[in-house]
Amino acid sequence: MPRVSDEHRAARRRQILDAATRCFVRNGFHATSMQDVIREADLSVGAFYGYFRSKTELIRAIAEGVIAGVIGPLDAILATDPLPPLTSALDEALGIIDLEAGPDGRARIAVQVWGEAIRDPELGAMVRDLYGVIRQRFVAIAVRARDSGQLPADTDPETVGIALFGVVQGYILQWVLIGSVDRESYLAGVTGLLRATPADPPRSLTGRPA
Amino acid sequence: MPRVSDEHRAARRRQILDAATRCFVRNGFHATSMQDVIREADLSVGAFYGYFRSKTELIRAIAEGVIAGVIGPLDAILATDPLPPLTSALDEALGIIDLEAGPDGRARIAVQVWGEAIRDPELGAMVRDLYGVIRQRFVAIAVRARDSGQLPADTDPETVGIALFGVVQGYILQWVLIGSVDRESYLAGVTGLLRATPADPPRSLTGRPA
Repeated sequence: MPRVSDEHRAARRRQILDAATRCFVRNGFHATSMQDVIREADLSVGAFYGYFRSKTELIRAIAEGVIAGVIGPLDAILATDPLPPLTSALDEALGIIDLEAGPDGRARIAVQVWGEAIRDPELGAMVRDLYGVIRQRFVAIAVRARDSGQLPADTDPETVGIALFGVVQGYILQWVLIGSVDRESYLAGVTGLLRATPADPPRSLTGRPA
Repeated sequence: MPRVSDEHRAARRRQILDAATRCFVRNGFHATSMQDVIREADLSVGAFYGYFRSKTELIRAIAEGVIAGVIGPLDAILATDPLPPLTSALDEALGIIDLEAGPDGRARIAVQVWGEAIRDPELGAMVRDLYGVIRQRFVAIAVRARDSGQLPADTDPETVGIALFGVVQGYILQWVLIGSVDRESYLAGVTGLLRATPADPPRSLTGRPA
């Protein structure tokens, strides 16, 4: 019965990832050991290591789950014709972050993993890969926005996509680190910024090249 | 000779902070002990503890140094009349980050401290305080931009300032975590985004309230 077995494996995998998420949120990524996760998942060591062999594998699986949850709505926007306003795409992204940003949310793990990724080349490569995937979705949205006339025809979608992704990352950081920001007011701020009078190419005040 | 003594203390303090910065960049904030910093600074334990008594005190002093370097140019922009374009203010902020974002730069420490701040209430409070100070500078810039007509008169500077700060934080994160972003192209992206056709209030695609 391979089908049942597949389902069983998927359920076990989910059980382990839920346990690991609880451990990482509760005690931090750094301070959590594989043994802690095995105990939390209530599995034997042998059963456990058939699924995940390192904390990096665990965190990659958790991150892939988060990222799938981000990519889905962004792909839905990309499949919409006509393209909704850019601010709607941002609103979607912020809404997903809200789901992850509570006291038990995975955004708290993400910020810790960023810190570890500076020191751990394997984690660093993982973060680069996964965030590169999300960033490309924002670039694709910028392409659509240009093609639909929301952005001028000479727009470089690559740089605008990177800026859009930056706006979203800034929301995560302010949410987790400073608090006192919410989706509605952040989006209002970005929308307000978009109403700025278009500037000439930036002037440098200090003589440094822009 | 209190003046000489003050100068001596300031030099010692600088010597310790430089040593701590090197340790944190090289081995990470988490893995660096007070003993490591004392050894790197080449001081006796007694001499050292007359200056700093914990890693949190060290990191606060390092962070205050970084933040003073950010605040200065932002205050220079705020003192300029007429206010330069918003993108020039952003360009200034990105330029400061560039100075901190190299392989030996303090931006690498910042991302690690963010991770620790999730778990450590004392660090968390420090980050909230210091970032609140920077965020208020961006709010002040938004006030000036509104008053000078760069932003419409009904702009809420509080939310626009938060969005501006978010844009800067997104740059730090992409620089440190993904790479392949530079000041010029990021600024071009933000400038490109500001050329977007003003949208109606954001529509939700999923029925969630915006």
